[in-house]
Amino acid sequence: MSQALPECKELIVEQRDHALFVTINRPQRRNAMTLNMVEEMVALFSAIEDKREIRAVVFRGAEGHFCAGGDLKDMSGAGKAAAAGDPDAFFKLNRKFGEMITLANKIPQAMITALEGTVMGGGFGLACISDWGIAHPTARFALPETSMGLPPAQIAPFVVARVGLTQARRLALFNLRIGADEAKQLGIVHTVAKDDADFEALIAQALEQVKQCAPEANAMTKAILLNVGKLEHEALLDGAARNFSDAVSQGEGPEGTMAFVEKRKPKWAQ
Amino acid sequence: MSQALPECKELIVEQRDHALFVTINRPQRRNAMTLNMVEEMVALFSAIEDKREIRAVVFRGAEGHFCAGGDLKDMSGAGKAAAAGDPDAFFKLNRKFGEMITLANKIPQAMITALEGTVMGGGFGLACISDWGIAHPTARFALPETSMGLPPAQIAPFVVARVGLTQARRLALFNLRIGADEAKQLGIVHTVAKDDADFEALIAQALEQVKQCAPEANAMTKAILLNVGKLEHEALLDGAARNFSDAVSQGEGPEGTMAFVEKRKPKWAQ
Amino acid sequence: MSQALPECKELIVEQRDHALFVTINRPQRRNAMTLNMVEEMVALFSAIEDKREIRAVVFRGAEGHFCAGGDLKDMSGAGKAAAAGDPDAFFKLNRKFGEMITLANKIPQAMITALEGTVMGGGFGLACISDWGIAHPTARFALPETSMGLPPAQIAPFVVARVGLTQARRLALFNLRIGADEAKQLGIVHTVAKDDADFEALIAQALEQVKQCAPEANAMTKAILLNVGKLEHEALLDGAARNFSDAVSQGEGPEGTMAFVEKRKPKWAQ
Repeated sequence: MSQALPECKELIVEQRDHALFVTINRPQRRNAMTLNMVEEMVALFSAIEDKREIRAVVFRGAEGHFCAGGDLKDMSGAGKAAAAGDPDAFFKLNRKFGEMITLANKIPQAMITALEGTVMGGGFGLACISDWGIAHPTARFALPETSMGLPPAQIAPFVVARVGLTQARRLALFNLRIGADEAKQLGIVHTVAKDDADFEALIAQALEQVKQCAPEANAMTKAILLNVGKLEHEALLDGAARNFSDAVSQGEGPEGTMAFVEKRKPKWAQ
Repeated sequence: MSQALPECKELIVEQRDHALFVTINRPQRRNAMTLNMVEEMVALFSAIEDKREIRAVVFRGAEGHFCAGGDLKDMSGAGKAAAAGDPDAFFKLNRKFGEMITLANKIPQAMITALEGTVMGGGFGLACISDWGIAHPTARFALPETSMGLPPAQIAPFVVARVGLTQARRLALFNLRIGADEAKQLGIVHTVAKDDADFEALIAQALEQVKQCAPEANAMTKAILLNVGKLEHEALLDGAARNFSDAVSQGEGPEGTMAFVEKRKPKWAQ
Repeated sequence: MSQALPECKELIVEQRDHALFVTINRPQRRNAMTLNMVEEMVALFSAIEDKREIRAVVFRGAEGHFCAGGDLKDMSGAGKAAAAGDPDAFFKLNRKFGEMITLANKIPQAMITALEGTVMGGGFGLACISDWGIAHPTARFALPETSMGLPPAQIAPFVVARVGLTQARRLALFNLRIGADEAKQLGIVHTVAKDDADFEALIAQALEQVKQCAPEANAMTKAILLNVGKLEHEALLDGAARNFSDAVSQGEGPEGTMAFVEKRKPKWAQ
């Protein structure tokens, strides 16, 4: 690998073939996030930005739960800092999570989230940024923030982008809990596994599928899709045509189109 | 209550516990809206903006119909004004409805629409601004405007926000009528009742659920969600983090998180 | 007709009653698009912009396939031009398709796409711009671009507008192929036909439905819907109220509302 990945204490990080497996590892707290863990995620997702040999990330939680959101106990640390004179302590804590999820949403790799058990609050937010969301039948989704007197603050745009405003307003304002099948109906996830074996098989299938796609073309495509509605229409199409022109004339396009004509797999799919 | 609610003639307005029940009351015209009724709605929704003791609005129609849209007979009043020399009479009439629905869409309370029978034109628009839309099995939805030579003008952005552009263009350009189940599939409503009793039970359930959520946190959250795509991403997250910081340090957060730790209901849920 | 339609070699164009039938006619290449065909589409869709006697376009492919996207062989023509010294040849080729699909998306007529067999790449893009998408049971949808080392460049905003970001990112980054029923679930199409006869019956039904709608009102409405999220909210509502005022006072509105009161069909529906 071009450069080592950062050391992580609250994430388990393993590279196998073309995939990076990232596991949130605080099972004693249902993988609730600490400020330290969020900083590890920022470092990790920043580090893989230019690594095209990593073509997919499988993001999951240890021991049967995905993530219970921000850890309230850890948050008391920020509270102490506030008491000690930093009036912006909670603002910074919350904003750091926003920085992380904004970054995680646009990694150039295909993001596969594997969702079991508790998927709540900030964990629900992370479920909203995948390119392929796979739910285990045990998965339970909720936005319980307002029942604790807090707004689901940094995740709001990702939830709205995921399920649309109509569903987001109901989920966020009525403290609902929903299961895997309803999560698929609402578009939170793409696929629901039948059982443990199917869950792992679906992750493997997603990793096989992504192998068919050229790494640089996938990175370009994801960036274009995420810019829809952010860049002005004609400017977006101009940039996309420039991407197309680069890819077809000197990038992966010559290999891909030749492989297509010759009815063989392109080299990235072998 | 801090201040009396405005008197209404074409709306029945009743407060019970934490909910305001607003009923459109022109059953002889399937609750079609008059200019006067629209002005009553503007006054009413403006008046509750700062009333946190009202935590939900239940919006419905009298005697088996929700709302048949703008009343064509009442519109002739604007026509007479036009004949009498105000060339902007129809513009103002239409625009007043737009002012009302824009306001109703963002009341800080949870908006529950209870939809029976006719839900058409402007009534369809009002169905699109709820946080929880509940359809009775009799509900029939349509955008018949263009069959009368008119554009569905002020409701367009609310319909698109509700069902997405794909479904909005089909519904508006082909004079379709759809039932409650298809309305759920398209995302116009969240829930379809089995019968009368279930319809009332679902309204009661929505009111129970909203009681679990802190009033100020819900108001903040709704405002954040409605700003997605309107404010620039980083600015939205900065504002949301400020909301979070306020809520957690001196707002409802201390009560909510303490209740969570103590495994008791917070005071707003009692 | 006010002015003749342009001659086309790769499209079959027939006007019957209020509908224009446009058929992509390169069946030997599964109706893959050439640069020449794209230019014919631009000329055709430009020419009908002011023709209100054409109230719907039925867009389909010859001999059992809708469209296989851009033709790789034809693309080699642009490649030769590139070799001959125009470094922007591929940019211009791709951008021309973007110009065409942007134009086709906003024709004032109701666009009905009839989708059979292969609906891929640029063909998938064209499936995303209809007002009513009807799928034949043989229809197969895919975005295979990245498997050939290329980004789905010009179609990206139309795919996202069609199915939302959540589904678009999965479809584009994993080289998936999906059938007609899943295409309906994702919102790529509105209706799935049971068989050949039902397919033709659904097209006829869409043409009957659109006849109920006033041509100018439909054109206004489509323009308003497509401007949602592009114009600022209050400016959009101001313009829409102006449209409404024009329609109701001197346009199709007087005929439409009078026909409604007199319980007869308006003249455009006869």
